[in-house]
Order: sequence, then structure tokens, then C-alpha cells
Amino acid sequence: MLPTPVSMDTTEFRKRGKEMVDYIADYFEQLEERQVYPDVEPGYLRPLIPDSAPQEPESFEDVLKDVERIIMPGVTHWHSPYFFAYFPTASSFPALLADVLSGGIGCIGFSWAASPACTELETVMLDWLGKMINLPEEFLAGKDGEGGGVIQGSASEATLVTLLAARTKTIRRVQSENPELTEVDIMSKLVAYASDQAHSSVERAGLIGGVKIKNIPSDDKFTVCGSALKKVLHEDRAAGLIPFFFCATLGTTPCCSFDRLLELGPICNKENIWMHIDAAYAGSAFICPEFRHLLNGVEFADSFNFNPHKWLLVNFDCSAMWVKKRSDLTNAFKLDPLYLQHCHQESGLVTDYRHWQIPLGRRFRSLKMWFVFRMYGVKGLQEYIRKHVKLSHEFENLVLQDKRFEICAEVTLGLVCFRLKGSNELNEALLKSINEARKIHLVPCHLREKFVLRFAICSRTVESVHIQFAWKHISELATELLNA
Amino acid sequence: MLPTPVSMDTTEFRKRGKEMVDYIADYFEQLEERQVYPDVEPGYLRPLIPDSAPQEPESFEDVLKDVERIIMPGVTHWHSPYFFAYFPTASSFPALLADVLSGGIGCIGFSWAASPACTELETVMLDWLGKMINLPEEFLAGKDGEGGGVIQGSASEATLVTLLAARTKTIRRVQSENPELTEVDIMSKLVAYASDQAHSSVERAGLIGGVKIKNIPSDDKFTVCGSALKKVLHEDRAAGLIPFFFCATLGTTPCCSFDRLLELGPICNKENIWMHIDAAYAGSAFICPEFRHLLNGVEFADSFNFNPHKWLLVNFDCSAMWVKKRSDLTNAFKLDPLYLQHCHQESGLVTDYRHWQIPLGRRFRSLKMWFVFRMYGVKGLQEYIRKHVKLSHEFENLVLQDKRFEICAEVTLGLVCFRLKGSNELNEALLKSINEARKIHLVPCHLREKFVLRFAICSRTVESVHIQFAWKHISELATELLNA
Repeated sequence: MLPTPVSMDTTEFRKRGKEMVDYIADYFEQLEERQVYPDVEPGYLRPLIPDSAPQEPESFEDVLKDVERIIMPGVTHWHSPYFFAYFPTASSFPALLADVLSGGIGCIGFSWAASPACTELETVMLDWLGKMINLPEEFLAGKDGEGGGVIQGSASEATLVTLLAARTKTIRRVQSENPELTEVDIMSKLVAYASDQAHSSVERAGLIGGVKIKNIPSDDKFTVCGSALKKVLHEDRAAGLIPFFFCATLGTTPCCSFDRLLELGPICNKENIWMHIDAAYAGSAFICPEFRHLLNGVEFADSFNFNPHKWLLVNFDCSAMWVKKRSDLTNAFKLDPLYLQHCHQESGLVTDYRHWQIPLGRRFRSLKMWFVFRMYGVKGLQEYIRKHVKLSHEFENLVLQDKRFEICAEVTLGLVCFRLKGSNELNEALLKSINEARKIHLVPCHLREKFVLRFAICSRTVESVHIQFAWKHISELATELLNA
Repeated sequence: MLPTPVSMDTTEFRKRGKEMVDYIADYFEQLEERQVYPDVEPGYLRPLIPDSAPQEPESFEDVLKDVERIIMPGVTHWHSPYFFAYFPTASSFPALLADVLSGGIGCIGFSWAASPACTELETVMLDWLGKMINLPEEFLAGKDGEGGGVIQGSASEATLVTLLAARTKTIRRVQSENPELTEVDIMSKLVAYASDQAHSSVERAGLIGGVKIKNIPSDDKFTVCGSALKKVLHEDRAAGLIPFFFCATLGTTPCCSFDRLLELGPICNKENIWMHIDAAYAGSAFICPEFRHLLNGVEFADSFNFNPHKWLLVNFDCSAMWVKKRSDLTNAFKLDPLYLQHCHQESGLVTDYRHWQIPLGRRFRSLKMWFVFRMYGVKGLQEYIRKHVKLSHEFENLVLQDKRFEICAEVTLGLVCFRLKGSNELNEALLKSINEARKIHLVPCHLREKFVLRFAICSRTVESVHIQFAWKHISELATELLNA
């Protein structure tokens, strides 16, 4: 018996691969007709498929038929123009093409030697992207820089990796100043900070790293300013704690607010606190000169991260992270068993990305950046960002014209936070009726004590007509609710 | 200006997607002719491409031309039949097709509601795979089990996640027994263990989690036995430490040795130590009844992990992990901001996989398992494993017939550790001449004080003819070296 099913040699792959390409193209062409959020109940899938894997091979036709029968009815269609939930996740044809290539090559780039192109293209693509958002030179690898970028799987991992690097760096510094302190003594005094609006992954990074993590109260714009950080630092220093890490957020998840880097950065620098910036969603906008000012102050940061896989047309996963000193990362993580060593690794030119991340293995993800940046061009990407921002303001204006509603936070990029003037229960009921109608899909957030609806511009193909439809629909449901 | 390059609408994607499928099919058909390891020096790529991203869109043709000109010369061809380095990384056409589909759907399955099919297919596929390797029922989700499986990105993440879950569980238990102890007191006493042959990622998990991690000495078969663990536990308990986690390895990276689960498991159970099993490479073999005995003792474990993305034809990334009590994971990690809550989440039927892993986002990876399991069938997969094991024994026999060489560890699955009888320098020189000749690619390991060559059966398309070629080549280089 052949190890490959007889039906799937390269000839068959050419045929089936092309059918799959057509299936995906059809999917996108008809996406608007599919219901954005599925009707299924938990546990729907198990009864539809066998209890165990088949002993004998099945045909591609049978599998593809089951995709329509079993999978599609349970899919939340993130790329439907009626999807306004969470934040966007990127999708573009150039990225899909690059992913096919990446899968075909199928190398595992944990070290330079494991596939030099995989490492080197990544370093250069992170430089390209860094230049697109006008990152300070120190964050770029260049030919002999001390900084550089890496693709992480998610912003959560970027936060964790930088928190751990900061932890190691601080422990070593404190120990060199106070040789009588043990690592455990120091760990027990370490404290990290982030806005009370920061993503839950920051708190999680603290939990994982075994350090205290505290919220800094944001102001009435949901922004952390310098005085708020100073106050907490003062209290914590007085209590004998060692502040070591501050995660600033640009574009918070609840309402896309921006921490004040220009106030926070100098404080962190002065106090020996590692400043990491999480701009997971908002970062893509910084490729447009008119939004770049939101990043001012990045020059004070030790590390910066955003997700091209959210809003820059590079399919998940592709979270771009830069550090000013890559030795801060490699010192925190470097372990070198013989089977992973190679003759070039002590050359200054070589990057072994396994020392920059949590997993060992890594796919050839920079191909997606290369394809997308080249086939859109910077201008094409800027137009894409601008279109989304324009659509969010269009929605904002529709809300503002309806006296029953209020806007709950400043609309800067592609997210609108809004609610009916009135109780949380009323707004919960409105969201429920929206999501039960299944015509569009939204998720809520809390802003202080208020239950708020989030309207995020998500799909690559969303246009004014969808925004107008969504608002008309929401407005009608609100009328029904208020009349009831 | 349109946000999508004019040239890349769905019509154009159909055309270019099909060209890319052909490019990949061509790549596989001609892979044997490509040099397995590249000739490039560090820094080769940067001068070949522009300093920054283009402002205007470029054409697909230009990008694809550059793949051959810039990327391919720097690729280490992991799927070449002359690649015998590290461990295999999986590649199959059904998995590639599924990945195209996964990319097209492009959902982010962090919660059940974010795409129910993505979560539910994963749970059922992990049950299928669990049954294929005859995992104890307790590890399966079934309809109302307490256990279940999840796809992690890598074995490193599985080790980290389970170590963190064990850490939380132990801290809570110790604190409930000794309310006077703080979390820091307990953390400072925690100690985790693994074989001195375990993967570097286990030590790294300890570093990340901020706990001590100690090596247990392996015996002359590179195996950890019960008495070795007992001895260290006895010493550590006497010193006031709290042993909490043991990572057993099935199929170590240096030489594919197997820790003695049947001795180690009962000790861990008795001593309240979480036993995790890392079978990253070897696990795939357990789908064959004749290798399943190597997994005996898994019934004592709390968690088990292996990588279908290594040896089960499911392209990277797909690391399968099971736990007996999924609440152990979710209790360690659960944080629930409102924007991630959904109405079904407190139903017993629902799994929100974000609580099982480090990142938040996750791709629809179970499609790859579904396509591969169905299009190969269990029998096809078993044949594939058996072919590799047969080829490794073929190589072993060639080595054994040459009196100049020795086998350095028992050959159980697809890895042969061998060396020239003689000094480490001699073997380092042999490896150097092998890798400089570029006809095949190997990496070394240390077994105790010995420098050893690892010959791993890797490619899906490797056959006896490649093994014979590789051995003849190695043997000739050895002759040259010994004559010099």
C-alpha cells in the first residue's frame, strides 16, 4: 500500500488544489448572502460526524461535501460585510497565496540554519514595516543594529515575552546592586502595570510570569496619563515593591483609547521600568501620516507590538514585535542544546528567532507580509485604513443624528462605542435583539459602569451600503424595543 | 483607488491561486533535484531586496519570480528525501488543502461563539486522535467527560501550559493546608523535574513559570526510571521543597529514548505530582498497535502531548494535548472580559479554548486533522509510520555491517544515533564533511560525553534508495577522513 492515498499524488493535488481555490473564491463571492452568525446550539457538530476516524481512505469529494454540510452551518463569518464584532481579523488574496507557498515549503525556522530565507526575510520585513510606521531607527535591525523585529503569534505572546525579558533584566540589575537578595526575594517584590482598560492578556502575562500586576486608573477619556502612573509608583516604592514593567495601550479593546506615551515614557525611563506598547489593533493605522502622531512617544519604549493580522491585510497569525535591544530577549531565554546549534550562530549577522519567542517551531510567516506589502503597495494599504476610518465616522454620524443614542468614547479609528441613553438592561436587550436577528453581529463592552455596544469596521469588503443597512436595522430594533 | 489591487479580485485570485497550486506541485515533483541545504551565508538576503516597501502595487508575476530568485536559494528543504536532520515536520496534500480552506474561512476561534465549528471540530478531532492511540477514556471529552484535547502551537507551549496549571493547582492545595503560607513562599519551594535527556523547552517552561526545574539522571539507556526520581524526591522533600510537576519524555530528542512511565506514574500519583508526558515526536507511532506498549502508563498521567505536525502528516502547527481534568487548565487561566463573554459559555457543552492556551487568537487548525485522517484513513497513516520505522532499521543494519561505526542508542522508531568508533573530533569532522558536501543534511547530539550523529527519517517521499545513497555517501566520506 502506498503511504499517500493513491488518489492524492501531485497530479491529483493540482486538480484538488484548484477546486479548493475555486471553493474559496466562491465563498468570498457569496459571503454576503451567508448569515453572519450561525444558528447552531452547543454540541451541534458531534452527532453529524462519526465517533472515530475511518480505517480506509475517503475521497476528497466526500470531505468537501461535508464542509458545506457540517462546517459552514457552524461558522461565524468574520469576513462578511455584516460582521462588526471584536476587532477585524485580516484577510486578503495576496496573503492567502503566500500561505499556500509557506505551507508548501513547510520549513520550520527556529534557527537561521533551519532555513536561512525564513529568518532573513522576516528580519527585513519587520524593518520594512517599521519604516512604514516610522519607528525610531533603534527598533530596526538594519545591517548592524541592536534592535529588530520578530513575528509573534499574537499580541498576548508579545506582552508575555517582553514581560519575561523585563523580569530577567530587573532581577539581574537588582541582584547586582543587592547581592544579598535571592531571586525569589526580588520576584516577590516585582510589580507590573497596565491601564484598567488594557487587554486581559496583560493580566494573564503577569499571572504566568508569577509577578504582581496592577491596574492604573484611566481618566474620563479611558486614557492613562503620567500623573496616574506616578501616584501608583510612589505608593508602591514606599511599600518596598520594585516596579519593573509598564504595558501602555494604543487603541484599547473596549473603546480604542490611547495612553499618553509622551507623559508615561519619560517616567518609565527615569524609573528603570521597561515600557512595552501594545497597539494590537491601532498599530496598522500608523502607516498613514495623519494617524502617526498617535505613536509619538514610542521613542521612550523598550518594545512595541501590533498585529498586521488584525488590520493590515496579512492573514492570522502575524503579530509584529520590535525591541530596541534584542539581547534583552535572548538573555532571558537562551538555551542551546547541541542539536539546535549551528556553525554560524555566533556571527553577529545571524538571528535565531527561537530565542525571541515561547514556542520553538515557527512557520514561514514573513512571506505573507512580503506578498501583501508588494501587491498592495504602501498606498494601497493606506487607502484601506482610510476607508475603514471613514466608514466608522459615517456610522458615528448616524448615531449622533438620533437623539435616543449616545456616543460613549471618542471615535479615532475604526471603532464606534455607542448605546441607547438609558439603563444597562435596555442596552443589553438591544444587543440581544440585534444578535438574535442574525443580520449583523456585534459584541459589547463595559465602560466604567455602562454597558456599551461596540461597532467595529471589520470586513475587507464592507462599504457604505452595509453601514447604512446596519444602522437602519439597529435603529428599527431600538424602536421596537422602546415601544414594547 | 480600490483597496484591493485592481489585479486581485476573486477572478484574479482564481487564476493566481491555481498558478500557486501548480508552483507547489512542481516544487514537490522537482524537490529531489534541489540541494537539500542552501549555500548562502548569513546576510545573503538583504542586498537582494529593496530597503523599504514599494509605494505602488507590484504584480503577482514579479513576486513569484522573486520567490525563485531570492527565497528558494536560502531554503533548507525539510521535505527533500535527502533531509535527515532534527525530526520530521509533517507535510501532506490533504493538510495543504485544509489549510487553504482554513485561511479562506479565516475565523479566530478563541471562544465557542467566535466560530462554533472551529471549537467543536477540534474537540471531536482530538477525541478521534485519542482513540487512534488508545488513550484512556478519561482524556477524552466525549459528551460529558471532564477531560479533553486541544491543539497547541507546539510541544513547548503544551509543557508550559501544563506546568502553569500544575503550579496553580499546587499553590491552592498547599495554601488550603497551610493558610499561613503566602503564594510567594510556596512558589519559592516549588520544584519541577524532567529527564536530563528532556527537551530544552522543559527547562524553559520552568524559567518562564519562575520555578526551580531539576534534571533527573537517566540510566545507560537514556531512560528515567522510578528509583532515580524517588531518590531526588526524597532529597528535595528533606530540604523542604515542594515537588509539583514531572515531565516524562517518550522519544527524547537526542536519541528517542523512553522514560519508564509504569514506574514513574505511581510515584507521581502518590506524591501529588502532576505528570505530564511529552511524546512530541514518538506519539504518532502509537497509532500502530505494535508500538502502543510504549505509551503504557499514560493512565497515571495528568496530561499528554504529541505533535501530529511532526510525524502524522498534518502540517505545522498542530500539537495535540489532552488533560484528564480540563478545569485544571481553565482554573489556572480564566479571565473573562465582557467583550469575550457570550450567552452559552456557562453551558457544560461549551469549550472556550482561549482558557487552554497562551495566545488568545487561534486558527481553524482541526480542519487539517479532519482532512488528513479521512483522506489517509487510519490504515494509510499506520502504513506511513511503519515505512519510516522500516527505513530506520535499514539504515541501522547498514551501520552495523561496517565495523568502523557503532550504534549509540536503541533504534525503536525512525531515528538512528551512530558514530565512528573513535574520538569526538573525528565525528565532528565527519559531520562537517557530510554537511559541507550538501548531498544530505544531518544534525548531531551529545549522548553523555559522546558526540553523536543523528539520522532521522523525515521526508514523506523518502525511500530505500535514498537511505542506500545516504549510507554510501557517509561511508565514503568516512573512508576519506580516515585515510587523511
